[in-house]
Amino acid sequence: MTGADATLDSETGATTADAATETYTASVVGATGFTGGELLRLLAGHPGFEVVQATSRSADNMTVGRSHPNLRGLDLRFSAPDDLESVDVLFSATPHGVSMDRIDAYFEAADTVVDLSADFRLPQAAAYDEWYDGHAAPAFLERAEYALPELNRENLPGADLIAGGGCNATATILGLKPLVDAGVLGSAAGDVVVDVKVGSSEGGAGGGAASSHPERSGVVRPYAPTGHRHEAEIEAYLGLAVSFTVHAVDMVRGASATCHVFPDEPLSKADLWSAFRGAYADEPFMRIVAGGGGVYRYPEPKSVAGTNYGEVGFELDPGNERVVVFSAIDNMTKGSAGQAVHAANIALGLPETAGLGFEGLHPVGSP
Amino acid sequence: MTGADATLDSETGATTADAATETYTASVVGATGFTGGELLRLLAGHPGFEVVQATSRSADNMTVGRSHPNLRGLDLRFSAPDDLESVDVLFSATPHGVSMDRIDAYFEAADTVVDLSADFRLPQAAAYDEWYDGHAAPAFLERAEYALPELNRENLPGADLIAGGGCNATATILGLKPLVDAGVLGSAAGDVVVDVKVGSSEGGAGGGAASSHPERSGVVRPYAPTGHRHEAEIEAYLGLAVSFTVHAVDMVRGASATCHVFPDEPLSKADLWSAFRGAYADEPFMRIVAGGGGVYRYPEPKSVAGTNYGEVGFELDPGNERVVVFSAIDNMTKGSAGQAVHAANIALGLPETAGLGFEGLHPVGSP
Amino acid sequence: MTGADATLDSETGATTADAATETYTASVVGATGFTGGELLRLLAGHPGFEVVQATSRSADNMTVGRSHPNLRGLDLRFSAPDDLESVDVLFSATPHGVSMDRIDAYFEAADTVVDLSADFRLPQAAAYDEWYDGHAAPAFLERAEYALPELNRENLPGADLIAGGGCNATATILGLKPLVDAGVLGSAAGDVVVDVKVGSSEGGAGGGAASSHPERSGVVRPYAPTGHRHEAEIEAYLGLAVSFTVHAVDMVRGASATCHVFPDEPLSKADLWSAFRGAYADEPFMRIVAGGGGVYRYPEPKSVAGTNYGEVGFELDPGNERVVVFSAIDNMTKGSAGQAVHAANIALGLPETAGLGFEGLHPVGSP
Amino acid sequence: MTGADATLDSETGATTADAATETYTASVVGATGFTGGELLRLLAGHPGFEVVQATSRSADNMTVGRSHPNLRGLDLRFSAPDDLESVDVLFSATPHGVSMDRIDAYFEAADTVVDLSADFRLPQAAAYDEWYDGHAAPAFLERAEYALPELNRENLPGADLIAGGGCNATATILGLKPLVDAGVLGSAAGDVVVDVKVGSSEGGAGGGAASSHPERSGVVRPYAPTGHRHEAEIEAYLGLAVSFTVHAVDMVRGASATCHVFPDEPLSKADLWSAFRGAYADEPFMRIVAGGGGVYRYPEPKSVAGTNYGEVGFELDPGNERVVVFSAIDNMTKGSAGQAVHAANIALGLPETAGLGFEGLHPVGSP
Repeated sequence: MTGADATLDSETGATTADAATETYTASVVGATGFTGGELLRLLAGHPGFEVVQATSRSADNMTVGRSHPNLRGLDLRFSAPDDLESVDVLFSATPHGVSMDRIDAYFEAADTVVDLSADFRLPQAAAYDEWYDGHAAPAFLERAEYALPELNRENLPGADLIAGGGCNATATILGLKPLVDAGVLGSAAGDVVVDVKVGSSEGGAGGGAASSHPERSGVVRPYAPTGHRHEAEIEAYLGLAVSFTVHAVDMVRGASATCHVFPDEPLSKADLWSAFRGAYADEPFMRIVAGGGGVYRYPEPKSVAGTNYGEVGFELDPGNERVVVFSAIDNMTKGSAGQAVHAANIALGLPETAGLGFEGLHPVGSP
Repeated sequence: MTGADATLDSETGATTADAATETYTASVVGATGFTGGELLRLLAGHPGFEVVQATSRSADNMTVGRSHPNLRGLDLRFSAPDDLESVDVLFSATPHGVSMDRIDAYFEAADTVVDLSADFRLPQAAAYDEWYDGHAAPAFLERAEYALPELNRENLPGADLIAGGGCNATATILGLKPLVDAGVLGSAAGDVVVDVKVGSSEGGAGGGAASSHPERSGVVRPYAPTGHRHEAEIEAYLGLAVSFTVHAVDMVRGASATCHVFPDEPLSKADLWSAFRGAYADEPFMRIVAGGGGVYRYPEPKSVAGTNYGEVGFELDPGNERVVVFSAIDNMTKGSAGQAVHAANIALGLPETAGLGFEGLHPVGSP
Repeated sequence: MTGADATLDSETGATTADAATETYTASVVGATGFTGGELLRLLAGHPGFEVVQATSRSADNMTVGRSHPNLRGLDLRFSAPDDLESVDVLFSATPHGVSMDRIDAYFEAADTVVDLSADFRLPQAAAYDEWYDGHAAPAFLERAEYALPELNRENLPGADLIAGGGCNATATILGLKPLVDAGVLGSAAGDVVVDVKVGSSEGGAGGGAASSHPERSGVVRPYAPTGHRHEAEIEAYLGLAVSFTVHAVDMVRGASATCHVFPDEPLSKADLWSAFRGAYADEPFMRIVAGGGGVYRYPEPKSVAGTNYGEVGFELDPGNERVVVFSAIDNMTKGSAGQAVHAANIALGLPETAGLGFEGLHPVGSP
Repeated sequence: MTGADATLDSETGATTADAATETYTASVVGATGFTGGELLRLLAGHPGFEVVQATSRSADNMTVGRSHPNLRGLDLRFSAPDDLESVDVLFSATPHGVSMDRIDAYFEAADTVVDLSADFRLPQAAAYDEWYDGHAAPAFLERAEYALPELNRENLPGADLIAGGGCNATATILGLKPLVDAGVLGSAAGDVVVDVKVGSSEGGAGGGAASSHPERSGVVRPYAPTGHRHEAEIEAYLGLAVSFTVHAVDMVRGASATCHVFPDEPLSKADLWSAFRGAYADEPFMRIVAGGGGVYRYPEPKSVAGTNYGEVGFELDPGNERVVVFSAIDNMTKGSAGQAVHAANIALGLPETAGLGFEGLHPVGSP
């Protein structure tokens, strides 16, 4: 780690990292993928990180701008993933199953590992047997800290293995956590229905016929009707078994979770405001959007596209004593790379919001 | 009514209405709106109807093709709604509240009235007090027959006041009816959560800032989080109180209902196939799409865009004994104008599928 | 050929093919692709054809509805392309280069061959050397008739080898033909700039990274900046060398050609109306849309989506003596399968508009 | 003007404006509109500006986040436009015609005025008579400096009236300027055809039926077939009369200009690279994208969405000695608010790229 300066893409035109801020060297493994590119984008604009390596098996020696046109200004080429440079922090954005195989090599190359796959997300090896294809390095599971700061901030400082949350799990957890914390669910906890709508970037780069533009445009496709793996994550971190269904809709970035909740005792709007404000009033990246005027009255993926913000809101259905909770994030940012950078900031003692200041756009189309 | 021939826009190039088919004269009231235009499209290609009047207050004397570019080939101009011609069948596509005020005039002009608004949908006047602004002509409610043939076919022959169903209610009813009929819901009936996704045509022509392209593109907008009026319709016709939430997503045509159902007793896939086949095997416009191969494994609004088909399907969630039912329609066709024509065909003794033969497109974008 | 009856998907609910109409047996080779599916859709609703075979190498023995969800009602399975059944008409929708290799086998199986690829579009073998990879069966080029009826109707009756036009060429030819016919271009013919915007269905089913939804959504992509093969076709049939550029934009179906023309002598609006009416007044599938009121004042792909219509229109730029001609078609229908069926109707003596009666939808999204 | 610190929405988490950077107070007049909101977004993240007033007649006293959901974190309310606070810099984002009426009041309130409307864009009052409804304050036209730094950087330092360029004119000028500077157009200058594709944000907030989502989705609409006012601007600043046509396509942000150019003498690729590199090699916001590998081979609005970048590229058509030049910008940023901030940075002696560091997103949908 060095005290060196400056990022390539200064937000300010001035030198953003003064002498007092340390700069950590970083590498991104699996950098041709969408979340890998999002990591590069965030780290390139981050005063506390200097990216020294971006690996890709398929695009070795090509410029990162060839894969990610927004990064054409970055003077960086992909290198082969087999020769990892020594860095302070290694971010891994590989498909599920790769990190658990390479975790020893990661720690040989880096002091801190931030993994964006599912490989270290779940606390128990048994869950990998049930939901995935088992685990190749279960000894690391206890060492891993779940990245979502709104859930796990107190355990992040000094963590050296950080496991990024799943995008749909993140949206759901952010929506339900205030009710869980307020203890208002009671025995109704088992009745929570979560209906998620997601964009095409969740399918990753490449994709087959189902992801092709003619087939994927304009769909409302039940792409995970039941049995989505993120259920395991929600249960592990909220202690809640939810009925979970995911639909693909026509956007590229974004995840919107609608949680239908049936509390034991009727709740008032004031109860809900109290629960949500109690959970998020001090959170730098959480916004409560519940009614009010204007066009955007509830959480909306468009409103947070490209940002690390999460929006949560709610409405009350007095007739059937239901609470509907809405939650919206950018699956690529708050749901993946932004969450990882946020957690790394806390782990390393950097300013919590460093590198995550983009406020989003208005208007914006299907982001 | 005459035995006369032929439609302007022949599907076949040959004379489609032979001497044996009678042709009914028809008018469309409120024909500049989206559902009015959809009625004109369907009736123009229907061998059993001859459209003699299309009314519009705002576009009086303009060609129908000016409002509906797909109907440029139709030699028809809008006329003022105050001078209704005498016809066999009057279709009304006015906003809610208009038909109940004009119902006497409608019956002066026509033998049969088919109303696409909410004005005669609910069987009890009390429901209009609760969900709408009361009712101006409650005496007609008992006379009205609900249009959806899959629900009410036996009462349609000879009906002279037909009330078209609401689009979101139609999607929901079609999805849940097989389970209601099979009697498998039991006391769990009260736990049904219905999460609907709809296109922008539901908002109608015109629209304000919230419907403008820059704001509406790419949304996942909770536009009726709770308290949607179609709940009343579902309860009236299925005997089921559902928890109902509607989201606007980025498509123009289409409604997709996802029903999360928790039966008293665990159901098997065979139980579900049996219930759905029992309900719809003989229905000419219903398709069961539940798993299988290819890109389109569940009901998808794109697959039925422009058609009178409804697709229904399901998946089983053994972990929490949940059934997820999916249902997709074109809100403009099966959810409104197509349903109305279908019901009119039955009421008048025309071939049931007449004028409704369009099979849809593949591929198609955001329809 | 038989006098047999009826199509599976009757538009009318009544029997559409009476005893007086002959029915031709037909096969579709290459039927899993988008244009193959479009052919199946049109032929299934056509009273003059009975589809007896649909071939596919990749989906042998699967239902056609698995690939084309709109055709789920069709009781037909793909068969291997090596065993061609004997039919009256064989439609081929294979990639370029296949038909020229199999043309002898096609004629062994069928009396009439309608090819939708580029293989028989150009009249001279030399053009295949310049724009494609040569030609394997040049002897058939003279025998082939170009399918576009607006250009070549007089040569279609009795033709036994029909070559469908390219979609972008079709849009361009339809726009410029009236000016060519009117003889108003003069020496300015060489200055015509054609700027085309197309949907993603032009790329065909499957597709790689560039066609994936996340990359393809929302683009204005110069996908053929110069050197598009359809230039050859335009030159061959209009006698005009155009400067041709094609952009991919966010729609699935549709091609819109904007032709910037600089006539030798200034033209008036009356001259233009005269030229366009002269060319198309009697054409059943051509509409002139040039100014006027309403939202749709010029040709618009949305207005013709799913139909066999072509819309053409124009505007005058007095300042620089430019005429701007607009032309819109559905690339899958008028630009491919619809044009083929239209030509086959003429070749076989069927009613010219048979099977092509779909009028399109309003509103419709990105079709 | 003060030496005070800090912006609300720090990109870095650290204090971005150290003591050495001066901060200018700023107001935004017309801040509920799209470009007004974009100004607020950019200025809120700019270390050199402190926004002290945002005016709106329609939303007086409401939070800016109500109109612009991305700015919910901004502690700022709209105020009435009649009471302008005294500031260093006043940015005006009102409709055309307002600024020329209020210019005296603007200068009473501010030392520097940056106007984003057309009111001071054209150098000659006569042009306003020809293209607009005349000019109410022609004396200011000479004082105004055109904002586009790539064209007019040398005259911006110290300018106190800056006139932002039109979005479509900006895209066109950026594409053609290298060829004009290189002097290669010769007498062919009069033959340049410019075919522009734009997003729906160009129509502004609100909008009528033509801008509603059902009608506007998926269009390729010739919305300014001829006679677009930006022609005047292009001619004024490039000395070039172009044939100009604008199409609306399905995106929200973005303008893409395709210029078809016919030089007197054949040009080589090397000539083009030399011309474009000569023009833009030192420009911080210009990128040359001309061929190469990957999905994004030419300028693409998606690649610059939300950023102040302009992409330009070209392709050569040897057959007809045509050069096709492509140019892509975000109409809201480089084409309006970003250009204005860029120019203000230069005028005030701030770092040129200050506040404009956002690099854009990948993937992103229809931005």
